[in-house]
Amino acid sequence: MSKVHSCRDLEIFVYVEDTDFQGIVYHANYLKYFERARSSCLRDLDISQSEEIKAGKVFIIKTINIEFMRPAEIEDNLIISSEIEYLSNARLFFHQQIKRNASDDIICKGKVEVCFYDQKKNKPVAFPKKLLKNL
Amino acid sequence: MSKVHSCRDLEIFVYVEDTDFQGIVYHANYLKYFERARSSCLRDLDISQSEEIKAGKVFIIKTINIEFMRPAEIEDNLIISSEIEYLSNARLFFHQQIKRNASDDIICKGKVEVCFYDQKKNKPVAFPKKLLKNL
Amino acid sequence: MSKVHSCRDLEIFVYVEDTDFQGIVYHANYLKYFERARSSCLRDLDISQSEEIKAGKVFIIKTINIEFMRPAEIEDNLIISSEIEYLSNARLFFHQQIKRNASDDIICKGKVEVCFYDQKKNKPVAFPKKLLKNL
Amino acid sequence: MSKVHSCRDLEIFVYVEDTDFQGIVYHANYLKYFERARSSCLRDLDISQSEEIKAGKVFIIKTINIEFMRPAEIEDNLIISSEIEYLSNARLFFHQQIKRNASDDIICKGKVEVCFYDQKKNKPVAFPKKLLKNL
Repeated sequence: MSKVHSCRDLEIFVYVEDTDFQGIVYHANYLKYFERARSSCLRDLDISQSEEIKAGKVFIIKTINIEFMRPAEIEDNLIISSEIEYLSNARLFFHQQIKRNASDDIICKGKVEVCFYDQKKNKPVAFPKKLLKNL
Repeated sequence: MSKVHSCRDLEIFVYVEDTDFQGIVYHANYLKYFERARSSCLRDLDISQSEEIKAGKVFIIKTINIEFMRPAEIEDNLIISSEIEYLSNARLFFHQQIKRNASDDIICKGKVEVCFYDQKKNKPVAFPKKLLKNL
Repeated sequence: MSKVHSCRDLEIFVYVEDTDFQGIVYHANYLKYFERARSSCLRDLDISQSEEIKAGKVFIIKTINIEFMRPAEIEDNLIISSEIEYLSNARLFFHQQIKRNASDDIICKGKVEVCFYDQKKNKPVAFPKKLLKNL
Repeated sequence: MSKVHSCRDLEIFVYVEDTDFQGIVYHANYLKYFERARSSCLRDLDISQSEEIKAGKVFIIKTINIEFMRPAEIEDNLIISSEIEYLSNARLFFHQQIKRNASDDIICKGKVEVCFYDQKKNKPVAFPKKLLKNL
């Protein structure tokens, strides 16, 4: 049975590096914003990616579905909200959403499937016990 | 009724900038590779994005679905292949795939929905006639 | 005669996107960190780049000198400190430095020459009066 | 005594990802172009960064001086030319320049100091013998 964990919102300010010649945020950069929010959430759950990689273990993305509603622009304050949907000890989905802070405008929505990978064994493994316990 | 156009393959070499601390290509960079292949394909179809924006018109992404099979690494030669599925004069899908050149290993697959947008009128419009004619 | 303005420090957390296969922050990303700090400083001085571009005016970089002391790593907390050296109403230097938060380790130092450019007149112009007044 | 090696030119096409809201190439991306040209040059000199890192050895940048003359834009074809100035077996400079292909317009010029680093010994070491021999 699935469980859901709500992550703390992450606030992101849009800088020049994030924009493109269309005057809006380059589409692939929303994936970076989503990743920042997931990494922050993992840290809140006491997971350190720099510790895990010392044991040869990394978080890997399997699938992403993303829907773009309206563009973000330079100097926007964005709020990234994320929920973890826990399906099994080897399968998680992050449901993520980006809003402009000053309004309720949704910029984009995404669903990201994450697994945990042992680079030495060369195969997916169960998530860290600490993560499973804290969810 | 839908039509399909096959784009010319694009070859991409993986540089340091593309990788992350896991020793593999950072996931969001595959979206950049896909976009390079779409832009190259549009140019082959005689579309210039720098010309279009002078008239306030830009290509906008609506949805992306992407599936990651195996990671690419630094110094890999990748082949991006793309097909345009034409649904109507305001709706296109790109079906895209990344392979390692030296093998038949599929790195990832994506489906990208693109529309055309008039920044002055602030609404989606039909694709450029030249594009529709050349498809 | 030159004047100096001290900007507020900017705190930056190092995410996966910032790193490369060497396990450290990709060198060009320090320029992004510097730019984030300059943009934040300009905002503190009441300058909005999104407002300026509506009048066709943009900040342009002329030269950068950067020295890399030691690498930053994923999950590092960095502090970007910046000082504006004002030389004339068309010439500014930012002296910028990145430190690891938890220590006094200097990651890198840079000197960035900035001018202001009128895209319609196609030439450098004096900085916004508001900026000159607030320095 | 210093020696100089001329690298093969690298051609780069400017994609959407490279641009910013000012309608030009984002300044930090020229450093990426420089790095692509250096990596390509190293490969021509029979150096593989993926091989070197297996032995814990990486190329590290010490200093960069860069001068920006005029902006590159989307759909530009750029030519990156590079020369290696060899000073000692632990110190190299790359002198690099970016031109627009269709003209002799210089976009920017840079000087990049590179050393070689042993991540296990935690100190700079002599460049690979193969590189020194092939210069």
